[in-house]
Amino acid sequence: MKIGTIYGVGLGPGDPDLLSVKSDRLVRNAKHVAFFRKAGRKGQSRQIADAMLPEGVIEFAMEYPVTTEIPLSDPRYNEVLSAFYEDCAAHLRALAQNGEDVVVLCEGDPFFYGSFMHMYERLKSDVPVDVVPAITGMSGAWTATGHPITWGDDVLTVLMGTLSEDELSRRMADTDALVVMKIGRNIDKVRAALRTAGKFDDAWIVEFATMPNQTVSKLREAGEKVTPYFSIIVVHGQGRRP
Amino acid sequence: MKIGTIYGVGLGPGDPDLLSVKSDRLVRNAKHVAFFRKAGRKGQSRQIADAMLPEGVIEFAMEYPVTTEIPLSDPRYNEVLSAFYEDCAAHLRALAQNGEDVVVLCEGDPFFYGSFMHMYERLKSDVPVDVVPAITGMSGAWTATGHPITWGDDVLTVLMGTLSEDELSRRMADTDALVVMKIGRNIDKVRAALRTAGKFDDAWIVEFATMPNQTVSKLREAGEKVTPYFSIIVVHGQGRRP
Repeated sequence: MKIGTIYGVGLGPGDPDLLSVKSDRLVRNAKHVAFFRKAGRKGQSRQIADAMLPEGVIEFAMEYPVTTEIPLSDPRYNEVLSAFYEDCAAHLRALAQNGEDVVVLCEGDPFFYGSFMHMYERLKSDVPVDVVPAITGMSGAWTATGHPITWGDDVLTVLMGTLSEDELSRRMADTDALVVMKIGRNIDKVRAALRTAGKFDDAWIVEFATMPNQTVSKLREAGEKVTPYFSIIVVHGQGRRP
Repeated sequence: MKIGTIYGVGLGPGDPDLLSVKSDRLVRNAKHVAFFRKAGRKGQSRQIADAMLPEGVIEFAMEYPVTTEIPLSDPRYNEVLSAFYEDCAAHLRALAQNGEDVVVLCEGDPFFYGSFMHMYERLKSDVPVDVVPAITGMSGAWTATGHPITWGDDVLTVLMGTLSEDELSRRMADTDALVVMKIGRNIDKVRAALRTAGKFDDAWIVEFATMPNQTVSKLREAGEKVTPYFSIIVVHGQGRRP
């Protein structure tokens, strides 16, 4: 009997026109799709693929049991998430073993801080898994600022807003170009770290990069409003430019 | 009279199936294309677009006057390159001012260490310029290794092989995940820096990511052969994974 393939399909930063030709084809021809989402939400990846999904597609929504309710430092966080990932992987594995291909919809690039990696590691030794790279959210963000991110020999550092303020400021000070992701409730810490590192005035913040509700502004002009988790902060490198 | 638009069209890492839907459409409908290349070569971006270019497309090859013949530290390097970029920009500007759209073919993502940035900065105040982000070469490379690049709170550092060995080793030691680009004749220095940083045994090297001649191996098993300038070295992060 034929074994199906699990496709980890990167959808890119959000604009459906920025899917790769390969991802676009896989989504439009899917019989089964699966996607992660927060309970009660439509799901970002599901939303990006909305107009592309074929009639009659079978959907498997993988709803996170926790996101911010249990602190990362609590051992239960890993236990609960691990059991959840095992359940999701078991469902996908069974589909593939029954001969079905499944397209897992992934925001951004699947191997770059992506949830699909947790499926990949659990499935890759059992069934065929094909990962389709994609445009990262950060590429969408720096393009939206209208300024190149890196020139010449510039060093680029990518930091998560979940790091400690000391760690953030130390690394922010020691790089040419900078991207900070996972902002959301970390925004005040990230602002403070940028100030300590002397980069606050050069920082841009992009919300909903490449999507219809995209906003782009210098961070110092962005005000104090709550910013989404998927916001991206960018500081451009200033390297050699003949 | 209508003014044309200069499109900086990212083509991604090499596989034509990995162009975005938008880039694919722009290339297939181009009347004018322009691209950088080393004199005497076909040009990497021109090669990627080869099977997509429409009949009768007008091609403008922008051939680098120098690449490695003049050392980077010599002031003539910047002078010669700057004059070359001015000439190219003048040609593109004249086309746009005559109402023609031009698709500039760009390997990888245009705003990430891309040559198109030199056109963008010279043209953006004179004519409309539209930049289409793309899958980076490094996304193609880490996907090819079959291992995710970053997990949880991993820090990612992107370094150019053109940096000094001390600078390379210091930064290699102080990151979770690592990408090194612009390898080529810098390979021995990069190897030495990875050894000093204790990361040599964890490093992978990918040549011609996503292309038919792609090779993927652990760096320590790659032998001493000459590796192309566009090779990419990857060390994967080992962060939190429930």
